[in-house]
Amino acid sequence: MADVGGSSGVQYFEGVEKLLEIWFTRNDGAVKQCDLRKISRSKWESLLKIVRCEVISFVRNEHVDAYVLSESSMFITNRRFILKTCGTTTPLLCLKPLLMLVEQYAGFNEVEDVFYSRKNFKRPDLQLSPHKAFEQEVAVLNSFFKDGAAYCMGNMIEDCWYLYTLNPLGEGNKARRGIQEPDQTLEILMSDLDPDIMNVFTREESSSAAEATQKSGIDKLIPNMVIDDFLFEPCGYSMNGISKKAGPELAAGCYMTIHITPEPEFSYVSFESNVPQSSYKEVISRVLETFQPGKFVITVFANKASAAAASPKELERHTSFGDWLRHDVQYCRFKNYDLIYAFYSKFPS
Amino acid sequence: MADVGGSSGVQYFEGVEKLLEIWFTRNDGAVKQCDLRKISRSKWESLLKIVRCEVISFVRNEHVDAYVLSESSMFITNRRFILKTCGTTTPLLCLKPLLMLVEQYAGFNEVEDVFYSRKNFKRPDLQLSPHKAFEQEVAVLNSFFKDGAAYCMGNMIEDCWYLYTLNPLGEGNKARRGIQEPDQTLEILMSDLDPDIMNVFTREESSSAAEATQKSGIDKLIPNMVIDDFLFEPCGYSMNGISKKAGPELAAGCYMTIHITPEPEFSYVSFESNVPQSSYKEVISRVLETFQPGKFVITVFANKASAAAASPKELERHTSFGDWLRHDVQYCRFKNYDLIYAFYSKFPS
Repeated sequence: MADVGGSSGVQYFEGVEKLLEIWFTRNDGAVKQCDLRKISRSKWESLLKIVRCEVISFVRNEHVDAYVLSESSMFITNRRFILKTCGTTTPLLCLKPLLMLVEQYAGFNEVEDVFYSRKNFKRPDLQLSPHKAFEQEVAVLNSFFKDGAAYCMGNMIEDCWYLYTLNPLGEGNKARRGIQEPDQTLEILMSDLDPDIMNVFTREESSSAAEATQKSGIDKLIPNMVIDDFLFEPCGYSMNGISKKAGPELAAGCYMTIHITPEPEFSYVSFESNVPQSSYKEVISRVLETFQPGKFVITVFANKASAAAASPKELERHTSFGDWLRHDVQYCRFKNYDLIYAFYSKFPS
Repeated sequence: MADVGGSSGVQYFEGVEKLLEIWFTRNDGAVKQCDLRKISRSKWESLLKIVRCEVISFVRNEHVDAYVLSESSMFITNRRFILKTCGTTTPLLCLKPLLMLVEQYAGFNEVEDVFYSRKNFKRPDLQLSPHKAFEQEVAVLNSFFKDGAAYCMGNMIEDCWYLYTLNPLGEGNKARRGIQEPDQTLEILMSDLDPDIMNVFTREESSSAAEATQKSGIDKLIPNMVIDDFLFEPCGYSMNGISKKAGPELAAGCYMTIHITPEPEFSYVSFESNVPQSSYKEVISRVLETFQPGKFVITVFANKASAAAASPKELERHTSFGDWLRHDVQYCRFKNYDLIYAFYSKFPS
């Protein structure tokens, strides 16, 4: 990602992203005319100003609008909003204007589900309010949503991952059944990466984003994707991929996205995709071979209707990927989703 | 538990306990002459002063010394130390003197494993340092132990449960394999209890601890236990049970312990036992029928050698106990232990 200027040598940059995903609906079910993509580009740009980032590239297909941002990415489908931003961005400050935009221009009047998540920051002290602590972030989220629940997965002292989502109590409330269409998300959050590989994502070694994409093998991670990539000056890389082949993945607004902070002092790479697969083992292995992290967190969400419904369970049994040994694993069942969190590292590190 | 005096009507009492369990060994394996029960009663009493509680009753058998304390309980076996204290006690302040006592009088020179856990306090502001926040507690524990890891299970906003334990990285280090003998612990931490049942644990309704034990059905929860019970003035109840029948449970220092804060404004009951069972469903059901909580947390730890090894998995599938519906569940695999955390509540509450 873009580096920030500073006084002393290499300025620290927080690669770890804040990931906000919101699904909208209507309380009367009349969603036919509703669409988040009715919101104009200039309205999104105003919103992103509040978040402290901007659009630097854009691709779309029939089902998803994909934006590369100065700090990570945004994906908009009919009723799903995904905003992933790194650095010192402030995505939770956009909640109020976002909900207003959505009601006024997209026609939805109800939030069906919310997922706000992030890995622990390396330097929380450098964040802006309310992102200095998860408790502060939760307080903001709770001021907008009912039935919110907050979790910390993994070792709170070292590598962990925070999640806020809706987890309504009780049964039988149809309006609160959650997302019924197939949904799944895989994230791989990698740290301490191979410096030679990270070098590919500098202007010194690669003359263009396309060159970095090809040299690194990113173009081979998930097939049939239109790739929108960006190589920052002097280093840093972002890419969005969206499905290009007609079929259920295209219709579901499938995407992938990778963001790379290559500086050896604080190298970080994130991989995320909602491509449905009954097993993510091969994709994960390809990603690990491509980036060679010293350590990484995996999270997989899958709801009951998803082709990946059994994938969290499969990963629960997976104590290693090659030389990467699992050190922590937690399995969570929510009302509508299963979630696995796992942390792996190379040993000896 | 004992009520604390105060100015305004019913004074708040924190029933939620801090639970510290430490297993000791020797780095040279020469444990034959080592025994925590070599530490004299007066030494334990001095230690408990630092924790701000005292011994009020005592039973023992060949394998375990069981103390009822003014705030909960302490269990000492050959190499296992368990201290469970409620109210505003400060168990983590005794770590330094405890480790010194153990080395000097019991002969152990190494900590094999540590488990420090508690539910979230209802009134953390009333706690004394370092117990005002889990982060503070973790800092103290980390100053004594290597390879510590800290977890929060469940919804951090409402009902959750904190755990600190050793989770060393890597493989092959024999000294760090953890506890190899069968070990398991079941806890049920109950809130919002039936006021009529809680009344049994007041001096008004029961003239003695034995009467409360029998009337409530506590004596039938786990068979073959020597019961040491105590009824506080004007209300509150504690009991320890230790195995009385020769056999593996006696040899393993098996115990049960129950602590009751009956005041309707902040009623709380904890049940804990390390009796090995392949399934805890029946014990849990008996406990729930006995106390009728509005909501409760269950945790089960079991290591690979335990007869209860499959019990965490069994509970993962258990979405309800009668009218109590599960609202949160997390499954954790540590190096040597599996752990399940689950939160249930009555609906509608």
